[in-house]
Amino acid sequence: MKSVKIGLLGLGTVGGGTATVLLRNRDEISRRIGCSLEVVHAAAHGIGQQTILDPAKCKLTEDGFEVVNNPEVDIVVELIGGYTIARELVLKAIENGKHVVTANKALIALHGNEIFKAANKQGVIVAYEAAVAGGIPIIKAVREGLAANRIEWIAGIINGTGNFILTEMKEKSRDFSDVLKEAQELGYAEADPTFDVEGIDAAHKLTILASLAFGIDLQFEKTFTEGISKITQEDVTYAEELGYRIKHLGIARKTAKGIEMRVHPTLIPEKRLIANVNGVMNAVLVKADAVGPTLYYGAGAGAEPTASAVVADLVDVARAMDTDKQSRVALLGFQPESISDIPVLDHDEFETAYYLRMLADDRPGVLADITRIFADQEISIEAVIQKEPQENQTCVPLILLTSVVVEKNMNAAIKQIESLDVIKGQVTRIRMEHLG
Amino acid sequence: MKSVKIGLLGLGTVGGGTATVLLRNRDEISRRIGCSLEVVHAAAHGIGQQTILDPAKCKLTEDGFEVVNNPEVDIVVELIGGYTIARELVLKAIENGKHVVTANKALIALHGNEIFKAANKQGVIVAYEAAVAGGIPIIKAVREGLAANRIEWIAGIINGTGNFILTEMKEKSRDFSDVLKEAQELGYAEADPTFDVEGIDAAHKLTILASLAFGIDLQFEKTFTEGISKITQEDVTYAEELGYRIKHLGIARKTAKGIEMRVHPTLIPEKRLIANVNGVMNAVLVKADAVGPTLYYGAGAGAEPTASAVVADLVDVARAMDTDKQSRVALLGFQPESISDIPVLDHDEFETAYYLRMLADDRPGVLADITRIFADQEISIEAVIQKEPQENQTCVPLILLTSVVVEKNMNAAIKQIESLDVIKGQVTRIRMEHLG
Repeated sequence: MKSVKIGLLGLGTVGGGTATVLLRNRDEISRRIGCSLEVVHAAAHGIGQQTILDPAKCKLTEDGFEVVNNPEVDIVVELIGGYTIARELVLKAIENGKHVVTANKALIALHGNEIFKAANKQGVIVAYEAAVAGGIPIIKAVREGLAANRIEWIAGIINGTGNFILTEMKEKSRDFSDVLKEAQELGYAEADPTFDVEGIDAAHKLTILASLAFGIDLQFEKTFTEGISKITQEDVTYAEELGYRIKHLGIARKTAKGIEMRVHPTLIPEKRLIANVNGVMNAVLVKADAVGPTLYYGAGAGAEPTASAVVADLVDVARAMDTDKQSRVALLGFQPESISDIPVLDHDEFETAYYLRMLADDRPGVLADITRIFADQEISIEAVIQKEPQENQTCVPLILLTSVVVEKNMNAAIKQIESLDVIKGQVTRIRMEHLG
Repeated sequence: MKSVKIGLLGLGTVGGGTATVLLRNRDEISRRIGCSLEVVHAAAHGIGQQTILDPAKCKLTEDGFEVVNNPEVDIVVELIGGYTIARELVLKAIENGKHVVTANKALIALHGNEIFKAANKQGVIVAYEAAVAGGIPIIKAVREGLAANRIEWIAGIINGTGNFILTEMKEKSRDFSDVLKEAQELGYAEADPTFDVEGIDAAHKLTILASLAFGIDLQFEKTFTEGISKITQEDVTYAEELGYRIKHLGIARKTAKGIEMRVHPTLIPEKRLIANVNGVMNAVLVKADAVGPTLYYGAGAGAEPTASAVVADLVDVARAMDTDKQSRVALLGFQPESISDIPVLDHDEFETAYYLRMLADDRPGVLADITRIFADQEISIEAVIQKEPQENQTCVPLILLTSVVVEKNMNAAIKQIESLDVIKGQVTRIRMEHLG
């Protein structure tokens, strides 16, 4: 039986999970592919303490460059994270003619163009299924399963920590900061939660999904990103009352004007399947012209779910490594010469519906003032909640749902509304998508 | 640019959809794969009336054998359905060294072993993504996306007509026969609805999923099949009261004793995502050892959703056709020499929980009699509903949920319960799965 030699960089959560899955499911994997996948060289800090790999069968080192320079290694698996040393190691592996598998979303989102260019030049494969939505085979679905389609949009819950927080806020009426603290204690959220709650991690993944969907270069710097730290219990409750759930979505959409790439809290109808994806789970909804909507759900993080994607990539690479370019899936799903330069839109140009919440004086004519401003900007109002004032209060919360509007028009309307005497403080706005 | 020549058999709903998608998305598909897919020969009854294919570019015939014998054709796409002439055409195409793409679940479920054997002998590919769950790329997910895993079980809503009927029964409190009539009028259900409502169509698909999951030969004749025609509004309502939904599931599960392959109505907890898959939509939930649960959702039928899967297969075959066996995905997901002969279990050996409904005399000791019978068979009762008798009634409905039990023990218990004087008529039983 043919044996494919793997060099493993990193033995942390995902690296350990990958080594474990490769060993435990060795026979099942061989039954599928008719060859064996052997880790022959591994590098990690403090690798002397590891207990998964057998030192009799696998060289161990602290120096990743030993692995990428080992002539015996066919495929380098990069599970270090970050994008300084990881980038150097991946580029060196490619230069050495090795195929690469990585779970590193930041590396691909930020340096993917450079890495894919080098890989195409060397004729090697770079696979990265684990970089988006963990164990869900979403990259394979978009790049191969939906290859017949023109993809219209993708909307995904692609950060488990954020989804856990929003789920707890909704189901247990808890506040953001309270749930975040618990998530940190449970190990779901990092000590510095910025990457998760401010949407940066989701933006890395969304950048990749957008390129796969539309055949454009990776453009992380153009991805609009808004976190969930300002979502209040009040908004969660009003959304529910109106038949919506608030989810932190990554959305990539092709319009007549260009590509929207955006990560932000979003009201979505509670009847949609994706509105019912709770806790740390991930799901990606893809709308394509022939198949319509399809959804992919599963664990977006964790040692073995992520390892599942890493090892699936290893299987694919093991199968494709002896073929020519024409028989391989293009790295970004489209042939390099067919990458499009369709523009990525500024957020001023985004088109979405809105949930708006404001505090208004409880006196006649307020709604008339507001509705006139919307009418001037050609914004329709789809629903209104205005409650009676509580005792001793002179202000009432006013909640509006609008039709789809260009963001700059909404900005203009909000500016005018905030300047009204009868409106107290700022208008809270959350984008809304029907995903139909 | 390389051009791959396609011979199309059948221009009905799916055939027409396939030709349409190939033409409409011709540029997007070429951007992805760097070659073009051209229908050069098509066969169908009354093909003179078709308006999709251009007769200047594509030979048209009423005789499918002309297509499979055309030396110019690289890939034959079989979209005729049935398993007499379709089988002959597919086998002839293989004999002629052509690759085959088919959407024909009955053909694969019943004659797949023979077809794959012939294909492996000839070194050609047979692809059948469209045969299971329409446009959802579930075969790719199971065979490739989850290749790192040992699959534990699969549970799918894989017949849209059945799901439409159960959804309407639940949401609008309608009766089975009433909804079936509407489904027939809407064109969801055939004039003879047996294939859909009695689970035969789902059993074809489940047979294929089980082989892909566990690497076993296709064994349609061993798939246990129970339809939804006996589900009553009463059962739907009680299930809801207990926090469950009734769905028609195809389930394939590997146990220590062998493989369970079964299609039947099933109570599932309403909190599960798959319990919220409504209308004609399909979804497949896969539980695997490394990744945990993943779910795949989308349209399970229709012209363009099915065409999406057919064309994705064409793309895969176009890419793999110039490679050797080792670089291709095995037809059943496992190497032919690794197919397992692990036994498929008889339904007596199935292990599931149960929902039971019976009509009992309203007098003391009834529940004691029943619970004693269950205790003797080592069956635990997890929930009971016993309502007060309605005026002028001496009998009350009694609903029980049990723990997981071997089916033969449940059969013995039900036989004893039905022999009790206090029980009127037969016990209704519906299997129950927690899918956790």
